[in-house]
Amino acid sequence: MARIVEVRQAVLTKNDARARELRRTFGSAGVCVVSLVSSPGAGKTALLCETLARLRSRYRVAAFVGDLATDNDARRLRESGAPVHQITTGTVCHLDAEMVARALAGWDLSTLDLLFLENVGNLVCPASYDLGEDLRAVLLSVTEGEDKPQKYPTIFSTADLCVVTKLDLAEAAGYDDALARQALDAVRPGLEVFRVSVRTGAGIPEWLDRLEAEFARKRAASCPA
Amino acid sequence: MARIVEVRQAVLTKNDARARELRRTFGSAGVCVVSLVSSPGAGKTALLCETLARLRSRYRVAAFVGDLATDNDARRLRESGAPVHQITTGTVCHLDAEMVARALAGWDLSTLDLLFLENVGNLVCPASYDLGEDLRAVLLSVTEGEDKPQKYPTIFSTADLCVVTKLDLAEAAGYDDALARQALDAVRPGLEVFRVSVRTGAGIPEWLDRLEAEFARKRAASCPA
Repeated sequence: MARIVEVRQAVLTKNDARARELRRTFGSAGVCVVSLVSSPGAGKTALLCETLARLRSRYRVAAFVGDLATDNDARRLRESGAPVHQITTGTVCHLDAEMVARALAGWDLSTLDLLFLENVGNLVCPASYDLGEDLRAVLLSVTEGEDKPQKYPTIFSTADLCVVTKLDLAEAAGYDDALARQALDAVRPGLEVFRVSVRTGAGIPEWLDRLEAEFARKRAASCPA
Repeated sequence: MARIVEVRQAVLTKNDARARELRRTFGSAGVCVVSLVSSPGAGKTALLCETLARLRSRYRVAAFVGDLATDNDARRLRESGAPVHQITTGTVCHLDAEMVARALAGWDLSTLDLLFLENVGNLVCPASYDLGEDLRAVLLSVTEGEDKPQKYPTIFSTADLCVVTKLDLAEAAGYDDALARQALDAVRPGLEVFRVSVRTGAGIPEWLDRLEAEFARKRAASCPA
């Protein structure tokens, strides 16, 4: 066990270095990078599909999507009309900075405003891997239980914001928003929360506004007047 | 990367050896061991709580439950009246055979008929760790998308049966059972499937029958006439 911890530490240190390089690359190109993490099936692809479709008339958007197997998600996301690259991880349970760097080969960052990184569905391992993103959004679906933040504290405490998804199922699932807020505050007091339903469109404008504000902040930072 | 693969292989080989010992221990005690794996929030704890409550009048049942943090699940499961032991894994994203072996210390296996192992919610990493169980059940909730078997093939192809959960939400979620069956058959043709709702009780008798049959098989095998 000591040996695997030591090797894991070395892997994370290397990842952190690679992520810093990525962050510099994204920074100098003025590309705003947003990653999505969650349980399998919490609705990352549905939210991202809607996000790409709504933003692409005004911004140059693209997405990288990670999965162990299949390119189902890339195919779904391409229906938005945005360029999408599938990263197939095989048995690896998370994206890492090197995978993102490799996927960047052949992309001209000067043609992009916002890049989305959809991680493998997993509430544990992706938490430890910095991908050079500006914002990490963790999704929590109303059907998976309000206590998930306390049971998977690292991924919630390392996220920049939380998106509660599938709001249209809240009543059927007996979702208790106060309980979820309590669980979030226990691991990350005051974490910014959006509540959305891709089906009904509820909360989507607020989510898009947040992304646009992040993009504006990034552009202002990378091109000082 | 080569180094982490090599260390991981060594860890798995050691785990396999420990799992074989566990399987012998459970076998000679005639204890039937059933593990549950799934995404976070697919309903392992709810199903297990119902299972323990329904079986405990006729069988001596107990459960070990794995989580990164909190003993929420152990507390919920104890409401069934059965003995429950929480295994807190810290940052480790799965149970392994050594954790189960350590948790067994202090339990007299001769006082048990069925032992349930609830794994950490994760569709990737638990797939590789044999826990010495007789049956591995993978849960798929109707809210998480019918394509999960194809996106997380290893955990579905190493399971002995699949339990489709939250059947009461099927209509609201737009769940398509034929599509799920297709996805299961693509990675594990003919996998035995149960469809349950803990809320309504649908499918629970069939699930319990299956567990009782497995227990009878195990007892017959460990005590040849």
